[in-house]
Amino acid sequence: MLKSQGILTIDLGAVIANYNTLKALAAPETRVAAVVKANGYGLGAAEIGQTLAAAGCRDFFVSSLEEGIALRQALKQGRILVLNGFYGSGADSYLEHSLAPVMGSFMEIEGYKKLGAKHGKKLDAFLSFNIRMNRLGLGAVETKKILEDMSMLDGINIAGVMSHFACSDEAGHPMTEVQYKVFDDIARHFPKAEKSLSNSSGIFRDKKYHYNLLRPGMALYGLNPTPETKNPMRPVVSLELPIARVRLVYAGASVGYGATWNAPKDTPLATVAAGYADGIFRSLSNKGALYWKGYRCPIRGRVSMDLTTVDLTDVPEKERPRPGDVMELIGPHQGADELAHDAGTIGYETLTSLGHRYERVYFEAGKSSIRISGGKSESARGA
Amino acid sequence: MLKSQGILTIDLGAVIANYNTLKALAAPETRVAAVVKANGYGLGAAEIGQTLAAAGCRDFFVSSLEEGIALRQALKQGRILVLNGFYGSGADSYLEHSLAPVMGSFMEIEGYKKLGAKHGKKLDAFLSFNIRMNRLGLGAVETKKILEDMSMLDGINIAGVMSHFACSDEAGHPMTEVQYKVFDDIARHFPKAEKSLSNSSGIFRDKKYHYNLLRPGMALYGLNPTPETKNPMRPVVSLELPIARVRLVYAGASVGYGATWNAPKDTPLATVAAGYADGIFRSLSNKGALYWKGYRCPIRGRVSMDLTTVDLTDVPEKERPRPGDVMELIGPHQGADELAHDAGTIGYETLTSLGHRYERVYFEAGKSSIRISGGKSESARGA
Repeated sequence: MLKSQGILTIDLGAVIANYNTLKALAAPETRVAAVVKANGYGLGAAEIGQTLAAAGCRDFFVSSLEEGIALRQALKQGRILVLNGFYGSGADSYLEHSLAPVMGSFMEIEGYKKLGAKHGKKLDAFLSFNIRMNRLGLGAVETKKILEDMSMLDGINIAGVMSHFACSDEAGHPMTEVQYKVFDDIARHFPKAEKSLSNSSGIFRDKKYHYNLLRPGMALYGLNPTPETKNPMRPVVSLELPIARVRLVYAGASVGYGATWNAPKDTPLATVAAGYADGIFRSLSNKGALYWKGYRCPIRGRVSMDLTTVDLTDVPEKERPRPGDVMELIGPHQGADELAHDAGTIGYETLTSLGHRYERVYFEAGKSSIRISGGKSESARGA
Repeated sequence: MLKSQGILTIDLGAVIANYNTLKALAAPETRVAAVVKANGYGLGAAEIGQTLAAAGCRDFFVSSLEEGIALRQALKQGRILVLNGFYGSGADSYLEHSLAPVMGSFMEIEGYKKLGAKHGKKLDAFLSFNIRMNRLGLGAVETKKILEDMSMLDGINIAGVMSHFACSDEAGHPMTEVQYKVFDDIARHFPKAEKSLSNSSGIFRDKKYHYNLLRPGMALYGLNPTPETKNPMRPVVSLELPIARVRLVYAGASVGYGATWNAPKDTPLATVAAGYADGIFRSLSNKGALYWKGYRCPIRGRVSMDLTTVDLTDVPEKERPRPGDVMELIGPHQGADELAHDAGTIGYETLTSLGHRYERVYFEAGKSSIRISGGKSESARGA
């Protein structure tokens, strides 16, 4: 009868296809890592990590130490790199769980050297260079000091050097080439280290940005790394929301908090059981839409915490949905990028905001598994 | 040394204080329920529910069947009402977990009667009436049918009747009184049922809206139910974010993706280890602020997935923070409502979007417990 939760479907086959698309763009000797921070952009770091490991991926980037520890439970093999660096407070955890930090300050370097000395080992790490982003990474003055006295790194095995593009999603943005040139000058001082510069968009901009190691995130998850053209990636996510109620309201009726929408004429409405607590941004109020059988059904009134109401006017009367039917929020008619556009943000934020009240279905080439929100139960389902 | 995660502190003592503030506004015989849907507005339905149960609360509202089942694990006593109604697909779960639906359609009523008949019991339920909100609830035509033929409800114990205010947060909004009058006319047909109309704001608007059962949510969590005046509630949430990196950038330097901010002069910056994947909305880019020792530190550039950069210019040089120090995102200088305002939304969305990468500390009158993100470990900490 009525379904109570939305269904978030994650197509692991599409994640593999996207990984292979990126691999095909790179030279055969170039490694393609996977960025699985923020719980795999909200889609499940363990599931994405295991899937890509099986597809040949050997390098995984997470944000924090805690994310690294969690991912290591799921991945016995493969290298896990912690982008936010080395946290002295959890030093021994890096060793215990085989995690390597991406370091961007003298403080981290000093702390990591001590850790290596304590254990009598030369530990692996990446160095991150700050080039015009001014978030993390070694600054110009620090970089100069290191290049003038490489003994500052004694005791650490600098396995890789990296930096990050700020504007590679904008085709032809001049900063991309500027960042590349600065990075290239630094990287040549580390002949034995792997070099990594390209995020998803960077991979598509110029092969000289590839070096040894690519670091795609969003492209793996089906977002568009080349916004100026058709999305070259396969969509990964679909999200269907169950209808709790259908009704006809008369002209002049209002919908939702603040009565911000008034029906210009008699209007059929559907209310779905999901709202901003499920990542349907409140900024979609009176802006976004859901789809039913391909018909666009605009959101009317404000999105509330657990409920969102849409207009069924454009659905022919005999095709209209009923309570229990599920409408498309993300799917063939509207990708995460398009939904984000209506909300005034980017597809990344759409994905990382997907809530925890959905039934999550992981789908892979002929088999699928269901994980009820939060992973409490798991069961097989025929494809 | 460096801390890697933000710390979200939830003051359960303040939740109790807020509950008591609301109780004091009501007549002694009026029951004050707690709305704990969306995982207790993101703060933990189990912890909030247990705390309020110990403080004398007997009625809890959740959104979905799944939320009801989860809350029942934490609350052996007390009534749990499911706002989104009766889902036939999980019918037996209502009985198994002692959950009562708030029903708003004939379909639900019919299904629930069948469930009662199957088990030979007259089951409790609330009825919800749609008055100008047009989300859930029985419409005017359905309501008329029921009032003309109450035998339609035979077999169900209508324990309560309710509706919901659309505009009670706006003092003096005419719709509030209109909704009240329609509800009052309906409610008089159910002399034995409890009556419930007031959400947090409604409680403050007029005592005649109180009836038997109040349904506060946001006010319990410290948000302001009377936005036109000073917040009468005690703040519940504080959120501190650890600094990963501090640096001085030169005039003309840019920050973050898209290089959307350029330093007008040499500028000290701090980058904290949290971003939009942690509920720091991307709409706060170049708009919101963090606080350090009471100094406002504006966000510079775009908020990214795991990192946010702020300007330390207004902090006197010798008081500036260092990596590992924690800055205030929500706390004494900036409440959830104020942060939401900068993001173009409301405090509710701020709370329900708080991420899962924070260390969660529940604090209650002299003792506190730490729950590492996701509840994986738990330990006691001196207050």
